[in-house]
Amino acid sequence: MSSVSNGVASGASTPVYLDHAATTPMLRVAIEAMTAVFHTFGNASSLHGSGRAARRRVEEARESIAASLGARPSEVIFTSGGTESDNLAIKGIFWARRDADPRRVRIFASAVEHHAVLDAVEWLEQHEGAVVTWLPVDENGSVAPDTLRAALALHADEAALVSIMWANNEVGTIMPIAELAAIAREFDVPMHSDTIQAAAQLPIDFAASGLSAASIAAHKFGGPMGAGALLLGRQVPCVPLLHGGGHERDVRAGTPDTAAVVGMAAALRETVTDIDSRAAELRALRDYLVDGIRSIAPDSVLNGPIGTDRLPGNAHFTFPGCEGDSLLMLLDAAGIECSTGSACTAGVARPSHVLIAMGVDAADARGSLRFSLGHNSTRADVAALIAALPQIVERAKAAGLAGAGAKGGIR
Amino acid sequence: MSSVSNGVASGASTPVYLDHAATTPMLRVAIEAMTAVFHTFGNASSLHGSGRAARRRVEEARESIAASLGARPSEVIFTSGGTESDNLAIKGIFWARRDADPRRVRIFASAVEHHAVLDAVEWLEQHEGAVVTWLPVDENGSVAPDTLRAALALHADEAALVSIMWANNEVGTIMPIAELAAIAREFDVPMHSDTIQAAAQLPIDFAASGLSAASIAAHKFGGPMGAGALLLGRQVPCVPLLHGGGHERDVRAGTPDTAAVVGMAAALRETVTDIDSRAAELRALRDYLVDGIRSIAPDSVLNGPIGTDRLPGNAHFTFPGCEGDSLLMLLDAAGIECSTGSACTAGVARPSHVLIAMGVDAADARGSLRFSLGHNSTRADVAALIAALPQIVERAKAAGLAGAGAKGGIR
Repeated sequence: MSSVSNGVASGASTPVYLDHAATTPMLRVAIEAMTAVFHTFGNASSLHGSGRAARRRVEEARESIAASLGARPSEVIFTSGGTESDNLAIKGIFWARRDADPRRVRIFASAVEHHAVLDAVEWLEQHEGAVVTWLPVDENGSVAPDTLRAALALHADEAALVSIMWANNEVGTIMPIAELAAIAREFDVPMHSDTIQAAAQLPIDFAASGLSAASIAAHKFGGPMGAGALLLGRQVPCVPLLHGGGHERDVRAGTPDTAAVVGMAAALRETVTDIDSRAAELRALRDYLVDGIRSIAPDSVLNGPIGTDRLPGNAHFTFPGCEGDSLLMLLDAAGIECSTGSACTAGVARPSHVLIAMGVDAADARGSLRFSLGHNSTRADVAALIAALPQIVERAKAAGLAGAGAKGGIR
Repeated sequence: MSSVSNGVASGASTPVYLDHAATTPMLRVAIEAMTAVFHTFGNASSLHGSGRAARRRVEEARESIAASLGARPSEVIFTSGGTESDNLAIKGIFWARRDADPRRVRIFASAVEHHAVLDAVEWLEQHEGAVVTWLPVDENGSVAPDTLRAALALHADEAALVSIMWANNEVGTIMPIAELAAIAREFDVPMHSDTIQAAAQLPIDFAASGLSAASIAAHKFGGPMGAGALLLGRQVPCVPLLHGGGHERDVRAGTPDTAAVVGMAAALRETVTDIDSRAAELRALRDYLVDGIRSIAPDSVLNGPIGTDRLPGNAHFTFPGCEGDSLLMLLDAAGIECSTGSACTAGVARPSHVLIAMGVDAADARGSLRFSLGHNSTRADVAALIAALPQIVERAKAAGLAGAGAKGGIR
C-alpha cells in the first residue's frame, strides 16, 4: 500500500484504491485539525481553563457538524463510529419505546441493512423479546413506500421503530427516505436511518428528512476512524448503551474525544462544500467505469439501480462463472483494491444478504465485486481497472470451473 | 491553557496542570505514531493489500498492549475508551452469566466505583433484574478481602460477577486486587476490575492478577482519547454491547481504529518502561505536595491511604469550611488546574459518593480537591500550588461563610 509507516515510506507502489466505501483516506484538513488538538490537553468535562477550552472545541465541532447536516447542535450525539450509532439508535429507541408502552416490541427494518443494524435487531429479537418485520426490497434494493405503509398499518399498535438505510453500502441504492420518514410520522413511529454511506456523497438535511435519528461515521467521509455521531431528535427518547458520566445529553457516556470530533467536523465541512458538483464528477467517473466494464465483460451484470437513485461513487457487478474472492485477490495482485461487498463481512463465505434480498441467485451473488470511488479517485484509477480486468476475469472463470464441486469453508 | 489551536499558539501562559487523572497530555510517541497512520489508509477488515497492512498495524498494537499488561494478544478487546470497556464488562458478563443460569443475577461491586461502573450496574438493577451487593469500604476507601468473601459466601449461587476497581480515581486507593480476585476464583465467579487509573502509574500484570476482565483507557496514560481496551480472559463469556461485523472476537463490532490503537500501544510502551522508578519519582513529588499543603493548611485533611496503597500521583484533600468549587475556580484564576473529584461528574452538586462511602461527613466532602500528577509534572508545578494556596483557602473560607445558608442548584 501507499503507506507511510512510522514516517518511513514503504517501497511498494501506490495501489489503485477502489474501496472508498470501506474507508476513505483522511482529508488533509482533518489530519491537520486533529494534530493541532493533540498538542493541547484538557478533559471537556473539567471545569478549569484547559477543560473549558476542550469543551469549546467539542461544542464548536458539534455546531459545525450540525450545520453540515441540517441538524441542531443539540441533536448531535457523539459516538465511537457507525456501528455504535446504529446500535444506540436501534437498541436505545427500542428500549425507550417499550418502556413507555410494553406492547411496542416490533421493529421494521429493511432486509438490506448493514450488519450493525441487522445484528442489533436480531439480538433484540433473540434476547429482548423484539418482533421483527423485515421489509422486502425490489430488484434494485429499494424499499417501496407502500411496503412500509402496509407493514405499519398491520401492526401500528406494537411498533417500536423503523430503520431503513439512506443508501446501501453494497449496491449503492438510495432509498426514498423523506417519503418513508413521512409515512413513519403518520403512524407516529420513530424512524432511524443508517446514513453512513450517504453522508460521504449526498447532501443530508436531517431536519428536512423527517427522520427521528440518523447515524454517521467519520472515516467514510475523510475523518478519523473511531468517530461518529447519532443525530437524534430532541423529542426522541433513547436509552443509553454506555452509562456513566452523563455526557452527550445523558444518552452516551464517555469522555468526548476532542481531537476526533474536531477532525470529523473538518472533514464534513470539506465534504459538504460543493457536494452537488463533486457528486456529478464522481457520477461521471463511475459511469466511465461502468461503461468500461460492460464493454470488456459483456456478460457482467450491474447490480442495483441505474441513474440518480444510486450513490455517485458506487458500482457493483456480478461476473458470471467467477468467484468474487478470486477476482478480488487477482485484482489485488495487480495493484487494484476493491471488495466483494461490505468490508465488515469480508472473509465470510456467505453470499451477500443484500443481493439475495434483491432476488439475485445465490450462486451468482458470490461472483460479485464492489468498486467504490471517493474524493481522490481519478480517471487513471478507473483506466487501470479497465485495462487489468479482462485477463483477470478470464483467470477467475478458469479457476471457478476448476474449483467447482470443491467448495466450502472460508476463503 | 497552553494550547496550540490550528497551529497557532494562544497568548495565554501555560497553566500548572494538576489534573492528570482527568486526562493527561498525549505523549510525543503517541502523536507521532498516530500521525504516521493518518497518512495511510485501509480498513483492517478488507482483504486487499491496504486492508492487510491496516490489519497488521492493529494486530501489532494488540500484541504490544498485551505485552505491556501481562495479557495474551487474544485477550485484548479494543473499545472506544474506559466507559465502554466498563459497560461491556459489566453488562456483557452479566448477560452471559444469566443466560447460562437464570439464577445468576447478583452483582458485587464496591461502593466507590467510577460512574461508568456504578451507573451500568444500576441500569442492570433497574432494567434487567440485577440484584446488587454494594461492597462497603474502610475509611481509606479499600474493600477488605473478608468483606468480599462474606458477601460471596452468602450468595454464591446467584453470583453473576464481581467488579472492584484496581485504584480509585478520586482518592487514589489501591485495592488488594490479587487477593480479591483469588477469592472470586474460589467461588468461580468472574471478576472485572476498572484499571483505568492504575494503568498509568502501576505495573499491571493481567495474568498474575487472576482477574477475568480489566478495563483501560488510553488518554489516562498519554494515548489518545476515544481509545481503550477490555482485557478479557479467553474463557470468559461476554455478550456484546455493539453488534455488527464480528470484529474483536465477536465481542465488540466496529471498524478497528488503526491510528488510535497504534497510538495507545506506543503510549503504553513508554508508560510501562521503568514504571517502578517513574512511580517512585511521582511519589516523591506527591509527598512534597502533601507535606507542603499540610504545612500551609494545618486543618486540611488528606483523604485516602498514606503510603504505598495509594496511586503515586494522587493527593486528595478536604479543606474544612471551604467549597471545593470555590477553591477550584480560585486556583484556576491563579493558573492552577485541579478538580474536585471525577471530571465526569464535574458540575454536579452532589458530595462524592467515594468520600461518603469512606465515612466522610457530607458537608466536609464538598470542600475537597484532587491534585493528580503525571508524566510531565515538575517540582515547580507543585511549588506554584503551595505558593498560591494559602490566600486561596483564606478567600474560599470567607466565601463559604458568606454563602452558608444560600446553597442549592449546580455551581
